[in-house]
Amino acid sequence: MHKFSEYVDLINKNLFKYLPKNEGLQKILAEAMEYTLLAGGKRIRPVLTLAFCEACGGDLNKALPFACAIEMIHSYSLIHDDLPCMDNDDLRKGKPSNHVKFGEAIALLAGDALLTRAFEIILCNETCDLAGATTTVAAAGCLAHNIGFYGMVGGQVADLENAERTINCSKLNEIHNLKTGALIVAASKIGCIVAQADKIQIDAATKYSELIGLAFQIMDDILDADYEKKMEKKLSYVSVLEIRKSKEIVKKLTEEAIKSLNVFEDSKNFFENLAWKLSKRDK
Amino acid sequence: MHKFSEYVDLINKNLFKYLPKNEGLQKILAEAMEYTLLAGGKRIRPVLTLAFCEACGGDLNKALPFACAIEMIHSYSLIHDDLPCMDNDDLRKGKPSNHVKFGEAIALLAGDALLTRAFEIILCNETCDLAGATTTVAAAGCLAHNIGFYGMVGGQVADLENAERTINCSKLNEIHNLKTGALIVAASKIGCIVAQADKIQIDAATKYSELIGLAFQIMDDILDADYEKKMEKKLSYVSVLEIRKSKEIVKKLTEEAIKSLNVFEDSKNFFENLAWKLSKRDK
Repeated sequence: MHKFSEYVDLINKNLFKYLPKNEGLQKILAEAMEYTLLAGGKRIRPVLTLAFCEACGGDLNKALPFACAIEMIHSYSLIHDDLPCMDNDDLRKGKPSNHVKFGEAIALLAGDALLTRAFEIILCNETCDLAGATTTVAAAGCLAHNIGFYGMVGGQVADLENAERTINCSKLNEIHNLKTGALIVAASKIGCIVAQADKIQIDAATKYSELIGLAFQIMDDILDADYEKKMEKKLSYVSVLEIRKSKEIVKKLTEEAIKSLNVFEDSKNFFENLAWKLSKRDK
Repeated sequence: MHKFSEYVDLINKNLFKYLPKNEGLQKILAEAMEYTLLAGGKRIRPVLTLAFCEACGGDLNKALPFACAIEMIHSYSLIHDDLPCMDNDDLRKGKPSNHVKFGEAIALLAGDALLTRAFEIILCNETCDLAGATTTVAAAGCLAHNIGFYGMVGGQVADLENAERTINCSKLNEIHNLKTGALIVAASKIGCIVAQADKIQIDAATKYSELIGLAFQIMDDILDADYEKKMEKKLSYVSVLEIRKSKEIVKKLTEEAIKSLNVFEDSKNFFENLAWKLSKRDK
């Protein structure tokens, strides 16, 4: 297994390679795509793809286009999420968000183009020759399923629809699983698929990713709540208690995620460290 | 060859089948997707897929998921085009446009979900078993290329960027080819690919589609101009002359398109009639 930072370097190099050329009539579109895709970011999802591919004995080169495609999908979702009709966020990682920088129309289209580009780079001849047609269809199909109606976009809608309602924990988990979990699960599963992993490995990777995906989303909510409290300069007992309880849930989910990793033996450490790192992040 | 209306019936039946189920947390998303996808429409693009598949001796059943995917892409592009940050159109085919009916956020996500669903239905096990993995990747790859940066979305951006500028005819054609032509070309090409057509057939179908695609876009402009004149209740000599000249160009493009069809022998009539029909449409 490589180090986390080594995977990130590999991903960043290849993301640049897979971006369309910044020229021609649609130059500004390439700029807008690059602006968000190469703005940094933890690259957790594509790292999962590469790491699970390696853990299952696969060739990293085969997994790279898929890893980059997954980061493009993540990037498109951020651009569309930030739009005024959605979360209306002016800032993303301390920089003006895509629509603030390029205008709403270009931001909308940059999201559309990143989503489409993701499929283009995994369905091109080069990737198909490398990974094989059957594997390419299986991996691309898994991606399409997990980011659409039955996955990420569906989760966004469920989230919007339930924003004003009081819902129970199981429904909230279901929404989190769709909205955030589905892409994280796809990232890991695709790494396994590319490595021709067996069902036991795929199931273990899926289980691990579902659990860290849920923990990840709860951490997001905790960090958001912390931030909001700081802004409002007040503390309420209820939310402090809720935050403490939520942090316990994150810890439990992380422990459970790690338990599902036994099948990976030597590579187990990598995923264990990653899960703890994510559960203790402060941004 | 079937009749145009027979292809349309087949497409409409299958579009319904391929829509996600209208249930669960994301119910409203299914409604919004269906609202635009099943609102009627000429179904020209998916008919081209089926007709070229049949003209090249292929099996219509294999082409159906691809034809439906292409109509989903067309539908997503209409929803995003109509959004306030784009053309800001309140009406589509005489009915409230998607964002007027469902709100901007759901409309944005319905577009994203249709785009993603298109890839999901052509990359699922069922389609792959039917068409074969290699053919599926080739067809899906062609689609992804033609609707992204180097195709439809790129054309949208080029159009936006040049809206205020005076550009020459060749640049305008280039924009039209990307914005409208690329999806029409993909529709025809994919029909050929699914039928395992040879290069001569694929090239002929591409040439025909490029030409009718351009004619189609010019007709759109003519119909828009006619409509605007009626609204403003005035006629200017310049635009009358421009319209007459544009109509001549449409006729020439159609004649040229038909010339490229010789390779298809028996099926030639179908595409010839289609080209003339499109060139004489009044809406």
